[in-house]
Amino acid sequence: MNKPFYNSPVLTTWRQAAGQDWPAYVEHDFVKGLADGTLPAEAFQRYLIQDYIFLVHFTRAWAMAVVKSESLEEMKIAAATVDALVNQEMQLHVQTCLKAGISEEQLYSAAEAIENLTYTRFVMDAGLSGDFLDLITALSPCVFGYGEIGLLTQRLAQADTPYQEWIDTYSSEDYQNLCFTVAEMIENSCKARLGDDPVKSVRMPALCKRFHTATKLEASFWEMGLKGSKW
Amino acid sequence: MNKPFYNSPVLTTWRQAAGQDWPAYVEHDFVKGLADGTLPAEAFQRYLIQDYIFLVHFTRAWAMAVVKSESLEEMKIAAATVDALVNQEMQLHVQTCLKAGISEEQLYSAAEAIENLTYTRFVMDAGLSGDFLDLITALSPCVFGYGEIGLLTQRLAQADTPYQEWIDTYSSEDYQNLCFTVAEMIENSCKARLGDDPVKSVRMPALCKRFHTATKLEASFWEMGLKGSKW
Amino acid sequence: MNKPFYNSPVLTTWRQAAGQDWPAYVEHDFVKGLADGTLPAEAFQRYLIQDYIFLVHFTRAWAMAVVKSESLEEMKIAAATVDALVNQEMQLHVQTCLKAGISEEQLYSAAEAIENLTYTRFVMDAGLSGDFLDLITALSPCVFGYGEIGLLTQRLAQADTPYQEWIDTYSSEDYQNLCFTVAEMIENSCKARLGDDPVKSVRMPALCKRFHTATKLEASFWEMGLKGSKW
Amino acid sequence: MNKPFYNSPVLTTWRQAAGQDWPAYVEHDFVKGLADGTLPAEAFQRYLIQDYIFLVHFTRAWAMAVVKSESLEEMKIAAATVDALVNQEMQLHVQTCLKAGISEEQLYSAAEAIENLTYTRFVMDAGLSGDFLDLITALSPCVFGYGEIGLLTQRLAQADTPYQEWIDTYSSEDYQNLCFTVAEMIENSCKARLGDDPVKSVRMPALCKRFHTATKLEASFWEMGLKGSKW
Repeated sequence: MNKPFYNSPVLTTWRQAAGQDWPAYVEHDFVKGLADGTLPAEAFQRYLIQDYIFLVHFTRAWAMAVVKSESLEEMKIAAATVDALVNQEMQLHVQTCLKAGISEEQLYSAAEAIENLTYTRFVMDAGLSGDFLDLITALSPCVFGYGEIGLLTQRLAQADTPYQEWIDTYSSEDYQNLCFTVAEMIENSCKARLGDDPVKSVRMPALCKRFHTATKLEASFWEMGLKGSKW
Repeated sequence: MNKPFYNSPVLTTWRQAAGQDWPAYVEHDFVKGLADGTLPAEAFQRYLIQDYIFLVHFTRAWAMAVVKSESLEEMKIAAATVDALVNQEMQLHVQTCLKAGISEEQLYSAAEAIENLTYTRFVMDAGLSGDFLDLITALSPCVFGYGEIGLLTQRLAQADTPYQEWIDTYSSEDYQNLCFTVAEMIENSCKARLGDDPVKSVRMPALCKRFHTATKLEASFWEMGLKGSKW
Repeated sequence: MNKPFYNSPVLTTWRQAAGQDWPAYVEHDFVKGLADGTLPAEAFQRYLIQDYIFLVHFTRAWAMAVVKSESLEEMKIAAATVDALVNQEMQLHVQTCLKAGISEEQLYSAAEAIENLTYTRFVMDAGLSGDFLDLITALSPCVFGYGEIGLLTQRLAQADTPYQEWIDTYSSEDYQNLCFTVAEMIENSCKARLGDDPVKSVRMPALCKRFHTATKLEASFWEMGLKGSKW
Repeated sequence: MNKPFYNSPVLTTWRQAAGQDWPAYVEHDFVKGLADGTLPAEAFQRYLIQDYIFLVHFTRAWAMAVVKSESLEEMKIAAATVDALVNQEMQLHVQTCLKAGISEEQLYSAAEAIENLTYTRFVMDAGLSGDFLDLITALSPCVFGYGEIGLLTQRLAQADTPYQEWIDTYSSEDYQNLCFTVAEMIENSCKARLGDDPVKSVRMPALCKRFHTATKLEASFWEMGLKGSKW
């Protein structure tokens, strides 16, 4: 499988540091079930509801990135992402769920799965404890993993999968462009803080570890979707 | 002078608590100079440059409000404001300044006046130290003061004032509607945290004090625009 | 079983809101094993290592309480707790672990169990998203639960339990006094923000929910100690 | 004048970057007045009251450093400083003020001078927006400036200055040792984030700017003490 990872040295380093946990996330059975259509409707529904709550906290995390941005580029991209999350991604979920008879207020106040709580609070604390880079690192497995998953599911999609709309969202030119934009910003943000060769910077191992942890938490989110929450 | 203050018991209480410092802000000589056109071009230019830096931090503060929002209404309004600030208000400034030969990067990295630093960091710390309400209270003199000032300058505007575009921005239906939307949210946010009669809540004096301090910092911002920075 | 819960209306309300999850935490099999000495040494060791990492983040959370304190009483108690955690509780762990051949640097960099990560980041985000009260509520199940557990294990302790030193720590007059001091502060902090009858305040249900979630995360911490990490 | 600046390459770089603003702070007329005893009692009183409020926020800032610490050394030093500030420095002020008939509660709730507000909120936002290093940089002019001032005033002190107790505090072995401890930590913290030669790191100019701004805010604090608040 070709994994472009958006042409970035830093992202490539991060993904490699995640080792087998990266494919365990982006090629998870949940993902394969989306592509071939074998994912149970119940699992998708569980995922959708939790993903809405996830998006609430993901929006908070990107808002925290606005708070912590130190260049005009960082501020604009983070602010645009906040807007896209609230006004596009969350709306997509709301509409899908409305069809299934679930109101937005119900979504907002649904019980949060522990896998959700763990992942999102880990990201928020990355923002509180570190700088813009620490936060963006924790956000990256979601942004770029969904990009890869979009392309992968598009390639493998069976004609009759009921999840084509989901696949179209993340394989869309819009979403793929977002990935490239954020990847470019990350390179710039790293160079501004870590120097000309960020991959060799003294902070890189800590950033790799943060990316790795977030990657595992993404995989546990799929697992929760597939089999229900562990706790 | 009629001061509707957007029909809200909480806002009315806050404004009254600011006493004479409220009119000292919204009827400042800088404001009168905008309306009658006597404001020196140099003062307006100084204001514009500092206001751009202010908008950067104001955007950060509204992003912090997204981080701290506890209802769907709060999150949506705060996120929409972040977007409006970055993509509308800041762009307006950038275009005005571009005409005067100042690039956006220059704006972003201009030396920050102490009046600016004081005000914006006070607001950010309100977000760090308190809850959503503490933060929104510190943001309110700017939001609603500019609403009042927009209406006031529109009413007093001389036909030949060179600042008509500025006046039109803040007296516009768009901006006035934003004020009403935020005012309604504040009532709801207060009721959700302070009970049915927020004005009588035990936290109200501390919120009034915070609003008052921010009001004085707004007046000092006009003063800086008019006469240059104190430090 | 007598549960004094430190004579506080607010704490009593919180504990009741946690329902059966409260005794599931304070009377967990891990706790019973401490008292009757049947807890496997391996389980205690696993707990000790994770508890060290927990104390690091718990210290960060109490430091966040200093950041967010709004009265002299709050600041002094939170600062004293930061000091007690770093210079007493953590030192106790370090010495116990040193006897077992584990250095403090090893402790500090041990792999963090997911139960630990979940709990501590949930607490930190309570501090980032809310005010002092939201944070203290999330910290309370640990503070007061260990107080109850100290008294309970002291009452049930078998003469030959190898965990007497642990039991002595949390049943000590020092620790019990700390509980009463913090309980009194919580009543005062609630009254200062919620009015004379905090239990009936509009924010109480949200605080109860936060306390309840933290209580469940405490129980999952014991479970991790007893049986190893779930993930 | 000999300025050891605690033997640190990073601190030396920061101080040099502050240029003439560094001696303008550490050799301010307020400082000279402490040494030769000509400082008016009224000015010292004004300083003492504001310095108490400053210490409250300085404690909050060091607590934020605990929140953001990423090594055991950082956590221990930051926590010890929180404790020293609350239980020693603030107590010193309280006792001095009690002699002058001012209670601690009065101190805590005294009106905050704008110079105080500006400086302390600037430091807090350094903690919110950046990482541990950004925060520590903003805290450094206070820590090390008072160290230099302690030595300077001790050297210049007239036998009859009424401010000998203040001079003794900051020239004491205890305080000087604190400076050396924090200086060593800063070198280590910089190396852990900026590499083996922090002074040449890409982040150094931004850190220098932050140090410089905080230095100017320290000087404005003396100015406020000497002549009253500007606003």
